Amino acid sequence: MADLQLLKVDLGDRSYPIVIGRGLLHSGFDILPYLSHGDCLIVSNETVAPLYLERVAALAKDRNVHSLELPDGESFKTLEAVQTVIDELVRIGARRDATVIALGGGVVGDIAGFAASCYMRGISYIQVPTTLLAQVDSSVGGKTGVNHTGGKNLIGAFYQPQLVLIDTDTLSTLPEREFSAGMAEVIKHGAIADAEFFGWLEKNMQQLLKRNVDSLVTAIHRCCEIKALVVAEDERETGRRALLNFGHTFGHAIENSLGYGEWLHGEAVAVGMLMAAKLGGLKKADQDRLKQLIEAAGLPGEPPPIGAERMRQAMQLDKKASSGTLKFVLLRALGDAFTTTEYSDSLLSEILQSADGKRD
Amino acid sequence: MADLQLLKVDLGDRSYPIVIGRGLLHSGFDILPYLSHGDCLIVSNETVAPLYLERVAALAKDRNVHSLELPDGESFKTLEAVQTVIDELVRIGARRDATVIALGGGVVGDIAGFAASCYMRGISYIQVPTTLLAQVDSSVGGKTGVNHTGGKNLIGAFYQPQLVLIDTDTLSTLPEREFSAGMAEVIKHGAIADAEFFGWLEKNMQQLLKRNVDSLVTAIHRCCEIKALVVAEDERETGRRALLNFGHTFGHAIENSLGYGEWLHGEAVAVGMLMAAKLGGLKKADQDRLKQLIEAAGLPGEPPPIGAERMRQAMQLDKKASSGTLKFVLLRALGDAFTTTEYSDSLLSEILQSADGKRD
Repeated sequence: MADLQLLKVDLGDRSYPIVIGRGLLHSGFDILPYLSHGDCLIVSNETVAPLYLERVAALAKDRNVHSLELPDGESFKTLEAVQTVIDELVRIGARRDATVIALGGGVVGDIAGFAASCYMRGISYIQVPTTLLAQVDSSVGGKTGVNHTGGKNLIGAFYQPQLVLIDTDTLSTLPEREFSAGMAEVIKHGAIADAEFFGWLEKNMQQLLKRNVDSLVTAIHRCCEIKALVVAEDERETGRRALLNFGHTFGHAIENSLGYGEWLHGEAVAVGMLMAAKLGGLKKADQDRLKQLIEAAGLPGEPPPIGAERMRQAMQLDKKASSGTLKFVLLRALGDAFTTTEYSDSLLSEILQSADGKRD
Repeated sequence: MADLQLLKVDLGDRSYPIVIGRGLLHSGFDILPYLSHGDCLIVSNETVAPLYLERVAALAKDRNVHSLELPDGESFKTLEAVQTVIDELVRIGARRDATVIALGGGVVGDIAGFAASCYMRGISYIQVPTTLLAQVDSSVGGKTGVNHTGGKNLIGAFYQPQLVLIDTDTLSTLPEREFSAGMAEVIKHGAIADAEFFGWLEKNMQQLLKRNVDSLVTAIHRCCEIKALVVAEDERETGRRALLNFGHTFGHAIENSLGYGEWLHGEAVAVGMLMAAKLGGLKKADQDRLKQLIEAAGLPGEPPPIGAERMRQAMQLDKKASSGTLKFVLLRALGDAFTTTEYSDSLLSEILQSADGKRD
């Protein structure tokens, strides 16, 4: 068995482990204690299934294992996809003791997790994230859901898995653009909660981009650790958990305005973080460090030319907006985030103008 | 203000009151403390909205009140209906601080509650049940969801409301057939948990059918009391709550086989209770009392001729079936129910034969 690192998301009787290691799928990590006694449905996509489906099916061994391939991409993260998963669960005769295994990136995890949450009002599920973004962010914490034309993740549930199983070897097949997109969420964790980790990322970004395994395990472990602590404190996002949305109010507006899938989520978040850093008045030197790290990770430093007005409209429907007031996550300093509804609207307008396609 | 009775569903930080009384909608019961600060969406149906929508809207006073009418009937309890509610929430720009008010019977409550549970991963909702079935059963306890061709309530969530507001005056407009269907759930509460209440029902059924208000308030209060205690003990139905499903394994199979809406839910449950009483070997005199009470309430005492084999297949997919074993709620005596997976299969076959359309 390969080395593995173990974290716990501490939520009372809904607690679960995050297991991180190299080659976990290959070396036969024992997932049986985390499966219910009935059928397993592995939900994956057309890209990931050919690579890892067999291995995951082998881990479930003696259970009745079924699989379903969804189309790949954020644009398929819809209620229809959830219905497809539910139809398949019905087709195989899945009962309350069935387990869904989500094998893939954030899209697969969000769809499969939401389907598990509402099939028979909730059956077990396991996350096997295969993208960097899913490994450091979306697979941990129980946020599931799908998009609506009116907004991202507008339909969903808070629903915790039984296990998050992260095999860093799966990153070896991840396309460069998606790897960079995941790195946006890695940078986010440093920016909101850990200045030292942010500094470590600045020193190690090249190693990470070369997919050096030790560096990856360190980064993924630290992100999951930060996220697990925040989620344990505030599962349903009534307070501190909102800090994890740093860059997301702007980012979601970019994704929503462009149409899901045009820009990857991480790309939109990267630009969103820069916009939020500016809005919060982070000191110029630190804004520059953030921008340099984002660009070093191969991520965009400027928004797409979607227009300031459109950005503002899209932001209004964001879940973070309450009673019409926008709520932002801003930085006091690198590693120190806070949420606020107080901000300079004229500064916001100025920042949004960068989405007009004109450089200042 | 009319007399009102108050119960509490005790679920820690998710506790909520059930308020029961005559004329509560008319006399301006103050619902404002139970609303979030944003918009209200009243979800109702084409039958109930013309009767009570204005009154409920008036209770929400100063909030932005919107309304949505769904088609009436169990056959419309689908994921599409949930999507319709969500689309409307998006259209009115509802945010996390919005409140959904479900005004109608069990179908409206189940759809609107599930939509509230998954819109932005959960916004507030209030149940204003207007049918007897919803008042004594479906509006209390947080079971929400919709049907799938594969089974009843196959897609849903456990999600508690902020308030259940029961105005017994709304029963005055309820068609006789629906009133009787609700009475099946009233009888169920006596049969599973309270022999004394069962006896009271035998004595007072004629008064209840005449819709005598004092009798109705007594019956509704006792049912809600029983249900609130059971739900407080076992919110997610891992144990005792399953007792509330007495008659439902058979009943759901009848509904599913006939197509939703052919028989009303309560009608199917009535017959289901008789089948379960037989399967559990309840003594003949008590089986007779149950049958007499059911028939006195204007409910069917025999299953529709859908065929024994079809009934058995439909039962296999019921949520109560785990790993292929059927689980039944049976009676030791009137007022004393238990769940079991042990039963005589030959007796079950014999009972199902009554669905072959041949009298024995």
